[in-house]
Amino acid sequence: MTTSHSLPVVEPLDQTLRAELQRIIDLKTKPPGSLGQLEALARQMGMIQRSTQPSIVRPAIIVFAADHGIANAGVSPYPQAVTAQMVLNFLAGGAAINAFSRVAGLELEVVNAGVAHEFAPHEKLVDIPIARGTRNFAQEPAMTRDEALAAMRAGADRVRHHAALGTNVIGFGEMGIANTSSAACLMSRLCGVPIDDCVGRGTGLDNAGLVKKRNVLAAALAYHPASNDPLDALATFGGFEIAMMAGAYLAAAEARMTIVVDGFIATSALLVADAFAPAVRDYCVFAHASNEAGHRRMLDHFGAVPLLALDLRLGEGTGAALATPLLRAAVAFVNEMASFESAGVAQRDA
Amino acid sequence: MTTSHSLPVVEPLDQTLRAELQRIIDLKTKPPGSLGQLEALARQMGMIQRSTQPSIVRPAIIVFAADHGIANAGVSPYPQAVTAQMVLNFLAGGAAINAFSRVAGLELEVVNAGVAHEFAPHEKLVDIPIARGTRNFAQEPAMTRDEALAAMRAGADRVRHHAALGTNVIGFGEMGIANTSSAACLMSRLCGVPIDDCVGRGTGLDNAGLVKKRNVLAAALAYHPASNDPLDALATFGGFEIAMMAGAYLAAAEARMTIVVDGFIATSALLVADAFAPAVRDYCVFAHASNEAGHRRMLDHFGAVPLLALDLRLGEGTGAALATPLLRAAVAFVNEMASFESAGVAQRDA
Repeated sequence: MTTSHSLPVVEPLDQTLRAELQRIIDLKTKPPGSLGQLEALARQMGMIQRSTQPSIVRPAIIVFAADHGIANAGVSPYPQAVTAQMVLNFLAGGAAINAFSRVAGLELEVVNAGVAHEFAPHEKLVDIPIARGTRNFAQEPAMTRDEALAAMRAGADRVRHHAALGTNVIGFGEMGIANTSSAACLMSRLCGVPIDDCVGRGTGLDNAGLVKKRNVLAAALAYHPASNDPLDALATFGGFEIAMMAGAYLAAAEARMTIVVDGFIATSALLVADAFAPAVRDYCVFAHASNEAGHRRMLDHFGAVPLLALDLRLGEGTGAALATPLLRAAVAFVNEMASFESAGVAQRDA
Repeated sequence: MTTSHSLPVVEPLDQTLRAELQRIIDLKTKPPGSLGQLEALARQMGMIQRSTQPSIVRPAIIVFAADHGIANAGVSPYPQAVTAQMVLNFLAGGAAINAFSRVAGLELEVVNAGVAHEFAPHEKLVDIPIARGTRNFAQEPAMTRDEALAAMRAGADRVRHHAALGTNVIGFGEMGIANTSSAACLMSRLCGVPIDDCVGRGTGLDNAGLVKKRNVLAAALAYHPASNDPLDALATFGGFEIAMMAGAYLAAAEARMTIVVDGFIATSALLVADAFAPAVRDYCVFAHASNEAGHRRMLDHFGAVPLLALDLRLGEGTGAALATPLLRAAVAFVNEMASFESAGVAQRDA
């Protein structure tokens, strides 16, 4: 299916260096295994980069923003205008992802994937909307299959731009009022999980709002016939930011980048990418377990052990940005630590 | 008790700015509470610093190293000589804490608190041993009360040195073959927890080694009469690195630093400090949940929610170093994020 759509081609992770990387890690001056998840992380990054000296070059976060017709169904406590307002906040440097990207030394790109707003030209905005928001999937598919594919290709192109600049670690964030509704429906359809297990409070619904959201989404899922084609699921329930992220994952894996997966929405886009090319998950590091209900089950779907669990539920790629210093630490210990032999440190008693 | 020993005086956390800090955090352009643990962290740091604009100045890690007489009881799979060898590795820059301190931008100081080795002079080594290792607490108290107090005062002095240089965030690490045995006995005595719940595999004991360690420590606890005086517990079961850390905690809290608490050994030293001055915990951030059995229960004792849980079990302050970027992120969002009003972002529907 991948090639028929001219989407990026993802090869399974090259396992050649696995044993050599493990040997290097085990000879470092520390009890074997004592760096826990960082050891697996270092090994994975080495395999992705096909190097026993993995590196982090020009790490980047791309934030994709778009609006959702389903917002008209009253599934979010925030008005749709907030999506555009937050894009301007990103461009002005005032959002959480700006602060965290600075702390982590990340390049930050903001993409208008399909916000219901016309932006004035801005040097920092990649203004490539597919449309001014999706249609309301309570009534009709959110987008056409062609729109979904165009968005995936556009997301892939943004990653290729960064690959050409040398980026080898990348994360994807999002902004889009009501996009937890899209993500929940994609999760339900692609993972075969009942919708009630996929729906959470998003930006902060109260109990009545949560019940309404569940009812709206259950009705939408019943209204649209199930299909085995992930492009159908994406077109029916997706958002333009989610579609661009899905394409971006595929391109990042094709470019053998280490992909830092953010929270609930970002992982829902990975579900789509994974349905096109399951090898994409080999390139993924799961940044955190979000506080949004359903994310843990999504992580279980991938057999993922997240690096962080800080009760975040913001999106924007904030979890990915916060996890990046752990990647730096993983790379640093492989490259910089002495071995027992080189440091003259005795190993454990025989 | 604190003043009678001329130890640092710890005042309870000044709560004056709590509400104002919370208001500032809630007005940032994000759903309220959506930054999870980072919000509590930012509020705590603001209160510690008595500032609505908390900062991180010259963050530092001090690694205290010492040897333990109990190592002669065969409670560790590594020979005692590894303690001195690892000190030399720290000084050469080849250990995990070196790599992680570089990644996190931390000053790193190495203190010989009482290693069973005479070190050649080294510009980076703070060579202030109390003795060349403790005595074997299976047979006699590890140190005298005077030695324990001298170590606490020496640890406090190292923190004052960094305070004078401007440091306002500090973490403490340790190296000492067999020091999980000291820490487990301190935990059992100070928390009133059965020793079997305090003992873990340390650097990697096998099942037989674990049984032996449990038996040795249970016998030691039975041999030494219980006392309500924390100085007695410290002198009986402690190590010089643990005693210096205990004093260092008190001095850091006195200087109103944010203290980043590392793993099992570091938290056992905090148990001692806490027994002298319970307000010390107000200044503590718990970096991670270690993979060493018993650490979770220690954290529960403090009601602590650790920032990380990466299955680390190395010590050296590595968990504290890895958590420091999260403190940077907490400070950054408070200082750098726009408010809803300043960014022109709509708040949630009424």
